[in-house]
Amino acid sequence: MTQIPADYRWPHKHLLGLEGLSADDLRFILQTARGFEDVSTRSVKKVPVLRGKVMANLFFEDSTRTRMSFELAANRMSADVLNFSSKGSSVSKGETLTDTARTIEAMGIDVCVLRHHLSGAAEQLSRRVKCSVVNAGDGQHEHPTQGLLDIFTLCKRFNRDDFDMTGLTVAIVGDIAHSRVARSNVHGLLKLGAQVILVGPPTLLPRSFADLGCELSHHLDSVIPRVDAINTLRVQFERISGQAFPSLREYATFYGLTARRLANAKPTALVMHPGPMNRGVEIDSAVADGPRSTYLEQVANGLAVRMAVLFLVTNAKPVEPATP
Amino acid sequence: MTQIPADYRWPHKHLLGLEGLSADDLRFILQTARGFEDVSTRSVKKVPVLRGKVMANLFFEDSTRTRMSFELAANRMSADVLNFSSKGSSVSKGETLTDTARTIEAMGIDVCVLRHHLSGAAEQLSRRVKCSVVNAGDGQHEHPTQGLLDIFTLCKRFNRDDFDMTGLTVAIVGDIAHSRVARSNVHGLLKLGAQVILVGPPTLLPRSFADLGCELSHHLDSVIPRVDAINTLRVQFERISGQAFPSLREYATFYGLTARRLANAKPTALVMHPGPMNRGVEIDSAVADGPRSTYLEQVANGLAVRMAVLFLVTNAKPVEPATP
Amino acid sequence: MTQIPADYRWPHKHLLGLEGLSADDLRFILQTARGFEDVSTRSVKKVPVLRGKVMANLFFEDSTRTRMSFELAANRMSADVLNFSSKGSSVSKGETLTDTARTIEAMGIDVCVLRHHLSGAAEQLSRRVKCSVVNAGDGQHEHPTQGLLDIFTLCKRFNRDDFDMTGLTVAIVGDIAHSRVARSNVHGLLKLGAQVILVGPPTLLPRSFADLGCELSHHLDSVIPRVDAINTLRVQFERISGQAFPSLREYATFYGLTARRLANAKPTALVMHPGPMNRGVEIDSAVADGPRSTYLEQVANGLAVRMAVLFLVTNAKPVEPATP
Repeated sequence: MTQIPADYRWPHKHLLGLEGLSADDLRFILQTARGFEDVSTRSVKKVPVLRGKVMANLFFEDSTRTRMSFELAANRMSADVLNFSSKGSSVSKGETLTDTARTIEAMGIDVCVLRHHLSGAAEQLSRRVKCSVVNAGDGQHEHPTQGLLDIFTLCKRFNRDDFDMTGLTVAIVGDIAHSRVARSNVHGLLKLGAQVILVGPPTLLPRSFADLGCELSHHLDSVIPRVDAINTLRVQFERISGQAFPSLREYATFYGLTARRLANAKPTALVMHPGPMNRGVEIDSAVADGPRSTYLEQVANGLAVRMAVLFLVTNAKPVEPATP
Repeated sequence: MTQIPADYRWPHKHLLGLEGLSADDLRFILQTARGFEDVSTRSVKKVPVLRGKVMANLFFEDSTRTRMSFELAANRMSADVLNFSSKGSSVSKGETLTDTARTIEAMGIDVCVLRHHLSGAAEQLSRRVKCSVVNAGDGQHEHPTQGLLDIFTLCKRFNRDDFDMTGLTVAIVGDIAHSRVARSNVHGLLKLGAQVILVGPPTLLPRSFADLGCELSHHLDSVIPRVDAINTLRVQFERISGQAFPSLREYATFYGLTARRLANAKPTALVMHPGPMNRGVEIDSAVADGPRSTYLEQVANGLAVRMAVLFLVTNAKPVEPATP
Repeated sequence: MTQIPADYRWPHKHLLGLEGLSADDLRFILQTARGFEDVSTRSVKKVPVLRGKVMANLFFEDSTRTRMSFELAANRMSADVLNFSSKGSSVSKGETLTDTARTIEAMGIDVCVLRHHLSGAAEQLSRRVKCSVVNAGDGQHEHPTQGLLDIFTLCKRFNRDDFDMTGLTVAIVGDIAHSRVARSNVHGLLKLGAQVILVGPPTLLPRSFADLGCELSHHLDSVIPRVDAINTLRVQFERISGQAFPSLREYATFYGLTARRLANAKPTALVMHPGPMNRGVEIDSAVADGPRSTYLEQVANGLAVRMAVLFLVTNAKPVEPATP
C-alpha cells in the first residue's frame, strides 16, 4: 500500500499544473478531496473553512462549467466569489493581464482562478501577484483540476483508495497536440503509476509524448481491448481550421466512440469525457448515456477536487527546513 | 370561508405550470407566500430555511427582472445561487439543454429555475433531472410564478384572505395567443373562482380559451366597466413581425390603457402590468403611475411568491398513501 | 487639529457627489473608512454590519473594477449583492431608468449603486426611489467614491490623521473638461484645505474651474516641482473623436508622466492613477511601477471608503431639529 510520508506537508501556494507536482502532492490533494466529498451530500452543503476568504474567477475565455464548479466549490466552503470575465471589462480598455490581476488582488483577494488562452499565463501571473493562483486552463498547456478530477474518478471506480494506479491502462483519444486536458492527465497518470496510451491522427499526436513514457497509437480499435478507461477529448470546432484536423466524418469514423467499437472493450472499461460533449462526433449517445460513462461522476468529483485545491493553496505555509 | 383540508400536504417536486395544480395547491402556495412576506420588511431580510441549498438560474432567454427576483428570493432564504445564461456558455459549443442541465445538476444543485424559448422545456427537463425544476417562463406556454404573484396581488388588494376569488372579474388584455403570462393567469384565476375576460384583436385571441371558461372580447371599452382588475400584457416588439399584430398606433387606439378609457371603470378597479412597460403603447404614464396601478406591488409580491415556491419544491416529499 | 464637532451626525441618505458635502461630512466618511480598513487585513474578512441588507449594482456603463469594488465592500459587510447591467436587460426592451430602478427597488433593495453615462442620473434617480443611491460615476459630472479614495490615499501617505489637507498641493492632469474623477477630486480637495492645480491642453481645461479656487496650467513641467501629488487621468480613447483632443503622441509628449519628467518633482511627491492605466500614454511603466506610484493602494483604499459609504447611507437617519 502506497503511503504519504508521515512528515509530508503541502508546500504549494499555487496550482499551475500537474507536471510540477510530486506523486505525494497528487495523493495528498486527492485524499483531501475525499474528505470534502461528503459535504456535497449533506442536506446543508456548506462548511465554514474558507469563511471571509475571497476567490476571484478571472476568465479570459468562456467556460461556464469550470467557472461554476469553482464558484460552487468556494461557496460550499463559505468563501466569497468575485466573477470577472474579459468581456466588457477594463481589458477592453487596453489593460494588461498583470494590471487587471494586481488590481483585483489589491481589493483583498485570497485566490485567483485563471482561465486564459495563452499557455503559461497562470505561471506568469503567479510570479506577479501575492495571492494564490489556480490554473483553470491556460492555452494548450495544462488544466490541472480537470486532470485531478479525471484521476479521482478513476481511483474511485477502481477502488484505488491509496491513489496508486499501478496496473491501470488509460487511453486518451483525440487532438492530443492542442489539449491541456490531455497534458494534465498524462502528467498525473504517469506519476501515479498508470500506463497511458495516446490515440489520435498523426497530425495531432506529437512524438514528444513518447519521451514522457506514453505509448502512441493511431488505431483506436487495436487499443480498445487493452484499456481500463478511455478518456475522449472534445472536438473543439472553434479551433478546427481545416489544416491538421481531418474532416469531422473521417474523425468520427476512426476515433468516435460508438457502441459497436466498445463491444471489444473489457467489461469493466470506463468511458470518460471532460464535457461539453458533441454527441455523434467524438462520442455516440448510446455510449455517453451508457453504463460505462463516467461523465456526470466527473462533474460531481470536480467539486470535491476543487474544494481540496482551494483549501490547500489558501492554507499553504512555506515549508520550513527540517530541524536536525 | 374556503379552507385547505387539514390533511393537505404539498405534493409537487416541480412547478411547471398552474394548469396542473389543484385549487388547494394554489391556496397553499399563496398562504406560504403570506408567511414569507414579512421577511422582506425586516431590517435583517434573511431567514436560514434554505441554508446550504443551491439554486441554479438557467436562463436561455434574457430576463433581468425574473432572474433577479428568483436570485433575491433564494438569497433571502440563505440559499446559494448559480447564474447560468446561454450567452458565451457551453450551449454555444453545441451542448443540449439536457446535457447542460444534467451537468449543472451533477454539481449538487437542489433546484433549477428555467427560462427557455421553447414551450414545454421545463416539463421536459423535469423528466431528465433529479433536482426540482421551476418554470420561469417556457415559450408561449406558462409562467406560473407570474400568474401566482398576480393572483396574490389581487387577493391582497381585495382582502381575499382565504384566496377564494369568487365574484371577482379580471380582464387580461393584449396578445393572448402568444402570452405565457395570460395562460398562467387564466388557469390560476379560474381554479380560484374568478371570472376571466380575455380581450384582444381577433388574430391574437384563440377561440379555444372559451372552452376553458373564459369570456372573449375584442372591445375593451365595453369590458372596462364590468371588471375588478385589468391585467395588461406587454406588447412584445421583438415578436411583432407585421402579420397577426395590428400597427402599434392601431393597437394603442383600441387596447391602450389611457386615463380617459379608465374613467368608465369601477372606482376600485385595479390596473396590473407584468413589466417591463411600454409607456404610451399598452399603458399610459398617467395610468401606470396612478392610484389603480399595482405595478410595483406585483414586483414586491413576486419575491414572497418565489420564496414560497422555492421552499415548497425543495422540501416536497413524495406523498405516501394514507394509512387506513 | 481639525475636529469633527461632537454633535455631528451623518445626515445623507444618498451619496451623489462631493460638491454637496461639507468638510465635516468628508472627514466623517474618511474616519469611518479608517475604522473599516482593518476588516480587509483580517484572516476572516467579514463583519455582519449589513447582514440581511441588499445592494444593487446598476451599471449602465461597463466598469469592472468599480463594480467589483462595491460588490466586495458589500460582501465584506455581509450584505447581499444583485448585479444589473444594461446589456441583455429590460432596458433593451425599452424600459426607462426610473422604471428599472423602481422595479429593482420594489424587490427590497436598500441601496442602489448607479453608474450611468448621463450627468445627473444619480441625482435624478435619488428623487424617484425610496432606497439610498450611491453615484458610481454619472457622465462627466462626479465619481464621488473615486474622489474619496484618492483623498484617503493622500491623507494616509502624508499622515493627515485628521484629514486636514492644508499645505498640500495636488495637480490633476489630463482631460479635465470631461472627467468626473477630476470634478470629485476638486470638490473634495478644496473643502479639506488642499491647493489644486489643474493641468491640461487649453481645449480640455475649462476656465470655470478657476472660479472654484483652482489654479490652471497648460505646462506640466513647470507645475511638477511644486506639487505633493500628481493625479493623472486616464486617456479615454473611447471618447477621443479628434476634435478637442490632441494626437496621442502630442499628448504623451506634453502630459505623459515619464521618469525623466518626474526627476524634477519633490522626493516625496506621489503619482496617482484611477486606473485602468494606458502604459506609455499618460503614464510610463517605470513610473506606474515605481516607488511614487499609489496605484494599488488606491484600489485597496477604495474598499474601505466604499464600505464606509455603504454603511453610512444605509444607516442614515433624517436629522432631527436640535432640542432647545
